[in-house]
Amino acid sequence: MTRVRSVAFDELELGQTARLDKSVTDEDIRAFAALSGDTNPIHLDEAYARGTRFEGRIAHGMLVGAHISTALATRLPGPGTIFLAQTLRFERPVRPGDELSTHLEVTAKDDRRGFATLACRVENQNGETVVTGEARVMVPRTPVEVDLPDPASVLGAKMD
Amino acid sequence: MTRVRSVAFDELELGQTARLDKSVTDEDIRAFAALSGDTNPIHLDEAYARGTRFEGRIAHGMLVGAHISTALATRLPGPGTIFLAQTLRFERPVRPGDELSTHLEVTAKDDRRGFATLACRVENQNGETVVTGEARVMVPRTPVEVDLPDPASVLGAKMD
Repeated sequence: MTRVRSVAFDELELGQTARLDKSVTDEDIRAFAALSGDTNPIHLDEAYARGTRFEGRIAHGMLVGAHISTALATRLPGPGTIFLAQTLRFERPVRPGDELSTHLEVTAKDDRRGFATLACRVENQNGETVVTGEARVMVPRTPVEVDLPDPASVLGAKMD
Repeated sequence: MTRVRSVAFDELELGQTARLDKSVTDEDIRAFAALSGDTNPIHLDEAYARGTRFEGRIAHGMLVGAHISTALATRLPGPGTIFLAQTLRFERPVRPGDELSTHLEVTAKDDRRGFATLACRVENQNGETVVTGEARVMVPRTPVEVDLPDPASVLGAKMD
């Protein structure tokens, strides 16, 4: 369990940033393939993938999108955030083992509606931008504080 | 294994549609939470979620985004599609057990670059639109034909 407190709408400042570091493992790619149903060999079959323009396996783009939504939901603004819209541009391939860092920055606030816009950028271990985008979220007026279970424990719970 | 053949760029027609039916199970939500690291109680803890504006647990928005990317990667245009950009608007909450259908329609083609634009709409079992968006993809000039393993087998492989 990790106790996390959100940034309330009035506390959110233009230019405020947050970062989430998270690797893309081979296991992540397999789990995403099983979950989404996208079992294309470009993601799963190294021999096949070597023969493509990517010259090796790549992660699903939307798996990288999940790093962004997790950064929004757990870091900035954090718990209680309501996801309204997201744009994603897939700039470079992400490969198994890549160590990604997701960077968020508050770029606009709509005081009347409690909406915020955040610029999103995901970078790999070589400092290359792999995904960019923009998120629009609704932010609670009062901070939300919750316990976030350890990700592995959530799967374990299912198996009981 | 399912043998799937993509729609090549020249075969793709404006107005062409495809559909992917896929439910969101409780297991999907737990798997997405474990994978993404977004273990917020709005997704996992029914007692907590009942006290929120959603009055019950909801799926991660990006999990629904994954239905769209799977529809693109397995149905239209299918294998070999290169994901360039995606917009997503989260219109209504998706709940565990919802039976979603993802609808794609080709709305534009850029002949020179081999790019296509598809309108994306995800509907629930009550005919309500839950997510809309637009995808921009690069489409191979020649059809790509591959074997897609059964999603469950992909996870099984990892456990060997």
